[in-house]
Amino acid sequence: MPRFEKVEYRPIPVRELLLEMKNLSELMIDLAYSAALFNDKELAEDVLELESRVDFLSYLLEIEIMLAARDPGDAEALTGVSTVASAADKISDAAADIAAIVTQNIGVHPIVGEIFEKVEERLMRVVVAENSILTGKSISELELAARMGVDIIAIRRNKDWIIDPKKDEKIMIGDALIARGAPAGLKEFRELCEGKLQRLED
Amino acid sequence: MPRFEKVEYRPIPVRELLLEMKNLSELMIDLAYSAALFNDKELAEDVLELESRVDFLSYLLEIEIMLAARDPGDAEALTGVSTVASAADKISDAAADIAAIVTQNIGVHPIVGEIFEKVEERLMRVVVAENSILTGKSISELELAARMGVDIIAIRRNKDWIIDPKKDEKIMIGDALIARGAPAGLKEFRELCEGKLQRLED
Repeated sequence: MPRFEKVEYRPIPVRELLLEMKNLSELMIDLAYSAALFNDKELAEDVLELESRVDFLSYLLEIEIMLAARDPGDAEALTGVSTVASAADKISDAAADIAAIVTQNIGVHPIVGEIFEKVEERLMRVVVAENSILTGKSISELELAARMGVDIIAIRRNKDWIIDPKKDEKIMIGDALIARGAPAGLKEFRELCEGKLQRLED
Repeated sequence: MPRFEKVEYRPIPVRELLLEMKNLSELMIDLAYSAALFNDKELAEDVLELESRVDFLSYLLEIEIMLAARDPGDAEALTGVSTVASAADKISDAAADIAAIVTQNIGVHPIVGEIFEKVEERLMRVVVAENSILTGKSISELELAARMGVDIIAIRRNKDWIIDPKKDEKIMIGDALIARGAPAGLKEFRELCEGKLQRLED
């Protein structure tokens, strides 16, 4: 059982916690596959970090479930919720296992690479450079999906994760962006983030 | 540890086993979510059955990995493969846990339904009726993707599963088809399978 810092209790809706656990666990699987495919240590580290977050959410959820159960009927109905939560936890553990192959330098066996290559759309992790023209622009403003078929699915900003960021979220210098798309679009997006391409093509 | 009937040993490439485990485990998660969302017992039973298949594949893979390791270097390189296999196994266990909420009549808590509702594309399980016009036609002939945005992702035929069926696979009476698509397309596809709609619209 992992340990967490003691935090002051503030109630979080069970729905919110469970949805974040589900979304994170699915994202982690995709990230872990990409990390293994490209032997990408940073992406693998992200997965391990997200795993701790899922553990923490699972701890908070457990507390909320206990507090929500006021009679045996409630408690019985809530067992389904805790089953889904523990399933999300198992999935995130599985993703972390795959990521650990990369971080522990075990070496990605060619077979593993081949298995993950079948994924049609790719994930990419890229850090926003100081001279990137994306800085200060909101996601909706950039129209990445229409322009290059790229979708920003998560942002790591300092120690925080913004999963499935809103359209009005602004890109900041130093953000690590996790983007999904076809290889050509991702290549253009990387150049924009790294400041090598200074113009958004229409 | 589950037990399996003794089968005569025939070698299967590690790559093939691992790819099937990975694909099955991902499919199972989607199926389990759909089963919980629609409280669909048949779909949930399918998930539990697939879980046994993943266990069996994992057993076969373990044997192949042992036979493939001829020296310490081989063995070390292959640990990554077995890590990915055990990750796929964990994911399939998680899917089975969710499916069991449905088969054990625990009742799907409203929160769980809401969480899974966010899935944009739906999965559907439908059995091909005797009078369905799809019978005897190959998947490519039907042009389901172009016509109604529907994709057949698995076929359960008698005791067998055909995952990601080939384009020339022919639909047979009694097939349980697992299809993915938007709600409107799936509705039309269901009527075609059940023989209620007797014409493929262009």
